[in-house]
Amino acid sequence: MNEFELIAKLTQRLPTNDSVKVGAGDDCAVLDLGLKDQSVLFKTDAVVEGIHFTAETEPERIGHKALGRCLSDIAAMGGTPTHALVTLGLPSGYDPERISQIYRGMSALALRHHVAIVGGETTTNPGQLLISVALLGTVKQDKAGLRSGAKVGDGIFVSGQLGGSFTGKHLDFEPRLAEGRWLVENFTIHSMMDISDGLAGDLRHILKQSGVGALLHAEMVPVSREAIMASREKTSSKPAMLAALTDGEDFELLFTVPAKQAVALKDSWKAQFPNLPLSCIGKIIKEPGLHLRDLRGVRELHDHGYVHHAQS
Amino acid sequence: MNEFELIAKLTQRLPTNDSVKVGAGDDCAVLDLGLKDQSVLFKTDAVVEGIHFTAETEPERIGHKALGRCLSDIAAMGGTPTHALVTLGLPSGYDPERISQIYRGMSALALRHHVAIVGGETTTNPGQLLISVALLGTVKQDKAGLRSGAKVGDGIFVSGQLGGSFTGKHLDFEPRLAEGRWLVENFTIHSMMDISDGLAGDLRHILKQSGVGALLHAEMVPVSREAIMASREKTSSKPAMLAALTDGEDFELLFTVPAKQAVALKDSWKAQFPNLPLSCIGKIIKEPGLHLRDLRGVRELHDHGYVHHAQS
Repeated sequence: MNEFELIAKLTQRLPTNDSVKVGAGDDCAVLDLGLKDQSVLFKTDAVVEGIHFTAETEPERIGHKALGRCLSDIAAMGGTPTHALVTLGLPSGYDPERISQIYRGMSALALRHHVAIVGGETTTNPGQLLISVALLGTVKQDKAGLRSGAKVGDGIFVSGQLGGSFTGKHLDFEPRLAEGRWLVENFTIHSMMDISDGLAGDLRHILKQSGVGALLHAEMVPVSREAIMASREKTSSKPAMLAALTDGEDFELLFTVPAKQAVALKDSWKAQFPNLPLSCIGKIIKEPGLHLRDLRGVRELHDHGYVHHAQS
Repeated sequence: MNEFELIAKLTQRLPTNDSVKVGAGDDCAVLDLGLKDQSVLFKTDAVVEGIHFTAETEPERIGHKALGRCLSDIAAMGGTPTHALVTLGLPSGYDPERISQIYRGMSALALRHHVAIVGGETTTNPGQLLISVALLGTVKQDKAGLRSGAKVGDGIFVSGQLGGSFTGKHLDFEPRLAEGRWLVENFTIHSMMDISDGLAGDLRHILKQSGVGALLHAEMVPVSREAIMASREKTSSKPAMLAALTDGEDFELLFTVPAKQAVALKDSWKAQFPNLPLSCIGKIIKEPGLHLRDLRGVRELHDHGYVHHAQS
């Protein structure tokens, strides 16, 4: 049983109650606590030394990343983050100054987004540092951008540029909070999520949960400068397009809107967020699976980011 | 810098906002999200293999403990838990069946208290299993039992019996949710917390945050059968009274009420919770510090559970 199968098994029969609008399986849980016109968003996310950062990573950037990942999930619902709790798993012999600096990075990001850090706890975690953040937020009722609502004919959009995040962006990314909120408040966002595991893998979550397929146009996928540079450095590197499709931790928004809103969206976005590119990279189709059209024809992209020739 | 000093430093200047009624330093954060007549409670707690349980602990009991600790914090505010998220830090080579059983233990407890488990995440945590639970709850506005409200003259009460939890209760305790809620709804609870680090250490938190002292009567401290048995087993064991004062993980309620409500409280409690003892163990005094009266006179109890003769 791999980790995904384990999660699928664990989340099959979780206890629930009437206030749960969306439970496990989306970027955040969506809860009805009885607020007028608003739902509550609830999310946790953990980073671990040796996996999400290293012993050499500047501590402020570790803190930024630890909170930023959770904020990105709230952004992907079109929500506003409000309160965070921080759990520290401390290895023996940890450096208190490093922990303070991690908190500084976290606090700077929290302040910028008016998020209160309302406590947390420390526990011993022999071996390595672990930082888990629990985050609360709110979203306008029935406006949360879910993974399950994509419809045949929708345009598929992505913010920013993709790939090569490992060269630095994974530590410094800005969660797309203003953008996510603006989207759900001004357009019919059929589905939305943030890109944390790579465009191809994450889009597949939307397709699966919505019961649809997608056709992407390779030349429309916004490949980052970092992905291109990395691909040129070594002949053994991933081709830049593959990096844009499969590198993780872009923390950009991936969403679908009805085709008839696509042009208006592109225009308004450009006026609203002139410094952040928005790309329409394809459309939602009836045929299941994730298909990529490039110069050689249409290929199907299979699991785990590997590209196989399905047809040409 | 020890862990407590680190926490004090980290929590000194956390970002906050207007909706935070109680931040770091109490059993839960208390938040005003705009609910009519209710505040939101927010808490996280983690258990780690080798510290809070062992490789031999029955997995259902691990799950029970992981969620139960958080529930106990909600109980200590007089609140009602509503939603939980579960973060699993999985060591390499973990046993998926064990994880499923841990979830079973957690789910059984959640069901009993109508708590929905609305997701979470798994991450790799080389070395040992870590389970972090984030919990939401609600409490009637201005009714939350805080640590900071103890007043001179208050009676100091404790539920259940204390000490020797390590023989089993730390895995099987029932969070005192009904009791905590009943207390804040029917009496003037000046201060309240749950006993997780031992009566003496935890009471000291109340004293410090309230700016008062306490005088305990040794013969009124409810020493558990387990603490007595453990003290008899080996001559090197802790005396039972010291165990009741300093053993951790009792997960009982510790609270203070105005003296004039003490008798009515004892009577009503007996009618409401006939199977759970309630003990008045002393009173809040003006003189700072934690003082214990026994056959030999009055002594002051110092930090870390050690008992020194201060006066006699």
